[in-house]
Amino acid sequence: VATLEVPVLIARKRDGGELTADELAAFLGAYLDGEVEESQVAAFLMAGVIRGFTEAEAVALTEVLVRSGETVDLSALRGPTVDKHSTGGVGDTTTLIVAPLLAAAGAQLAKLSGRGLGHTGGTLDKLEAIPGLRVDLSADEVAAQVSSIGLAVAAATADLVPLDKKLYALRDVTATVASQALIASSVMSKKLAGGADHVLLDVKVGDGAFLTDPSEATALAELCVRIGEAHGRRTGALVTDMSQPLGDGVGNAIEIAVAIEVLRGERQGERLTEVSLALAGAALELTGVPRDEAHGRVEELLADGSALDRFRSFVAAQGGDPSVVDEPRSVLPEAPVTATWVPDEGSVQGFACRRLGELAGRLGAGRMRQGDTLDLAVGLEVHVRTGDRLDGSSPAVTVHARTDADAEAVLAELPTVVHVGPEPADPVELVQARVGLDRAT
Amino acid sequence: VATLEVPVLIARKRDGGELTADELAAFLGAYLDGEVEESQVAAFLMAGVIRGFTEAEAVALTEVLVRSGETVDLSALRGPTVDKHSTGGVGDTTTLIVAPLLAAAGAQLAKLSGRGLGHTGGTLDKLEAIPGLRVDLSADEVAAQVSSIGLAVAAATADLVPLDKKLYALRDVTATVASQALIASSVMSKKLAGGADHVLLDVKVGDGAFLTDPSEATALAELCVRIGEAHGRRTGALVTDMSQPLGDGVGNAIEIAVAIEVLRGERQGERLTEVSLALAGAALELTGVPRDEAHGRVEELLADGSALDRFRSFVAAQGGDPSVVDEPRSVLPEAPVTATWVPDEGSVQGFACRRLGELAGRLGAGRMRQGDTLDLAVGLEVHVRTGDRLDGSSPAVTVHARTDADAEAVLAELPTVVHVGPEPADPVELVQARVGLDRAT
Repeated sequence: VATLEVPVLIARKRDGGELTADELAAFLGAYLDGEVEESQVAAFLMAGVIRGFTEAEAVALTEVLVRSGETVDLSALRGPTVDKHSTGGVGDTTTLIVAPLLAAAGAQLAKLSGRGLGHTGGTLDKLEAIPGLRVDLSADEVAAQVSSIGLAVAAATADLVPLDKKLYALRDVTATVASQALIASSVMSKKLAGGADHVLLDVKVGDGAFLTDPSEATALAELCVRIGEAHGRRTGALVTDMSQPLGDGVGNAIEIAVAIEVLRGERQGERLTEVSLALAGAALELTGVPRDEAHGRVEELLADGSALDRFRSFVAAQGGDPSVVDEPRSVLPEAPVTATWVPDEGSVQGFACRRLGELAGRLGAGRMRQGDTLDLAVGLEVHVRTGDRLDGSSPAVTVHARTDADAEAVLAELPTVVHVGPEPADPVELVQARVGLDRAT
Repeated sequence: VATLEVPVLIARKRDGGELTADELAAFLGAYLDGEVEESQVAAFLMAGVIRGFTEAEAVALTEVLVRSGETVDLSALRGPTVDKHSTGGVGDTTTLIVAPLLAAAGAQLAKLSGRGLGHTGGTLDKLEAIPGLRVDLSADEVAAQVSSIGLAVAAATADLVPLDKKLYALRDVTATVASQALIASSVMSKKLAGGADHVLLDVKVGDGAFLTDPSEATALAELCVRIGEAHGRRTGALVTDMSQPLGDGVGNAIEIAVAIEVLRGERQGERLTEVSLALAGAALELTGVPRDEAHGRVEELLADGSALDRFRSFVAAQGGDPSVVDEPRSVLPEAPVTATWVPDEGSVQGFACRRLGELAGRLGAGRMRQGDTLDLAVGLEVHVRTGDRLDGSSPAVTVHARTDADAEAVLAELPTVVHVGPEPADPVELVQARVGLDRAT
């Protein structure tokens, strides 16, 4: 590192050049060791955000991130190991449906999740709405549970990809988040460190997601898939709609209730159900099951209750109350106040989807900043989607709040967040692209 | 500052937008106060280096820099106050000739100078080669001396433009030096804080200078002039050749000897003499003297010994041995070893001018890093210029060294630094552009 000429490397990126894998490893390794200044990495990141990183740099950066910490070894597990990751959205509880579906299909999922921040929720927060359920499992507990029931969902430890945490905090304050290569390497480093041989990504696109342009979302999915494959993992992605909430629930306990209702077969044909089936089927495709057979199998495992049984085992294994599976709404915490918005006659034209997530956050369901305490009971239930026809007596949104004042404040804003107008509107396509899936295996 | 959204400002510059003067003042003021991270400023600077800063931003940035510290008040002085600044080069001692010329013409110069770094020397280091001479004058001493003899040259204190020092150190390690607006605001902030009403810049262009492209050098000169005029100072610039050493001396005592020889009238027609006259004449133009009259007057003040007398008063006033003016080579320190390089017959094709400065530095004349101790006696004397015809017995360079080994090491490298070839070569134009001078005053 004594001979590492950091300003020379930064200048090369500033001028649109490329760094080698060895240079990236030396530069960022020295940063992790405190031998390179935060300011130098910030200047480098900004140069890369503006000039762009090459695919080779993204692959190399991912490798550097993975090597910065410990990795999970899943090689002792029987059956194909699978990981699933969503880039985040509003009302997105697919993990809680896809994981038991895949476990029921014989796959093994050791899912390391995070907390929510801003307008999107986090799987760990949602799960903690189930009385008794623990997410602070040790590595040995995760391994034993996956081995016995095929799935575990736990908090990622600080030992995994520490450089990603350090870089993300820096990117957040220096306006250098918006880079396909930086996003892809961050996502993929965590998947690679997680140890699964098969990785399925759900890249969200629309107002409620990080990316709003479908071609950018597809490009990000493609880059993630190429990084995964370059590191020897079978990787695929779906690009799916996030211009509106995915499931009806937006808020922790409400989302759990809706997810369980999907697993109970009570929400057939809904968008959350359809995306969950598409994702689970795609993940099976990655493990080598032909497309039609894969999708047929997951539909069957949902219909025959196998996925629900697996979810019950999962809740019990992590210390939660398994009766939540039978009576979700009575076991889960409930907000003291509910209020319903019934719009005038018309059609749903679309959503300010991010604002919808923020409204749920304002009720207490989300964190505005790291460390905020959540109210797991509050949130929104959204009963309509873009293109739906309303007859003037249809409830569009139910607000679950701590106080009447909270509920009224949100009710007053809803007409600017769910757009209802006189013209008929078309529904939005749910799965907008399949990436890395349709190839000879 | 609590409401200052720093990432939003950085993102605007990242996307090619512009910051207002108030935003720049709030952002960089908070940085100086330690309330904004170095990493955030580094990201902002990199975005600006790549996307460019507008002229309005450069003007505002200069204002922020000036306001970060104290300023010098020269309003009590009679006669026009003048400041002169060179962007730096090899063998550039024009300050020591121009300042006494202008003082002799009735102008007032309170010149605050710096130390050398890298391949360029610093005026303070050079002056300290004169036995007894002090450069650590107090503000009161500077004022009294300028008032009595028209000039003083002293070390700039840390109280002047502290934000520039902090920003420069950051730019140096983050590869964000190369920006016209950042360079111009740094230069002009120091001139504005120095308090003179008239500012003349010598923007160097060529291999020995920071800029090698004449159109870039002219653009930098134009930006500096517009910044100065926007702040109410009459500002002009010459763009001059730095593809070869300006004076024959490269090294501290040697440069002083050569400058005194210019003032003694012993180096008529040489490039250092010609540029010094052009700069002094241009500075008088800025004070309102018509062009022909201004240049005629400075030639006369050099020819009749007035400038030399003024230099003698200056040396005596700052505690130096005034006999240096009569016998420079015997009063100034001398290196123990000299060796001369006589090239084969041919013409001088050009110079690796920066390397020449670095060779003098290697002999001990320059700092490779801040804090290095200098040997003021060593250096090079360069007797030839581009286009000169050599007959095979003409000395081209004399090396002044501490040891035979040092001298021989430099002699061995000289043929790759001063390029001599068989073809005839044209001399390089000395003054390449005049900026901000030829207009109605």
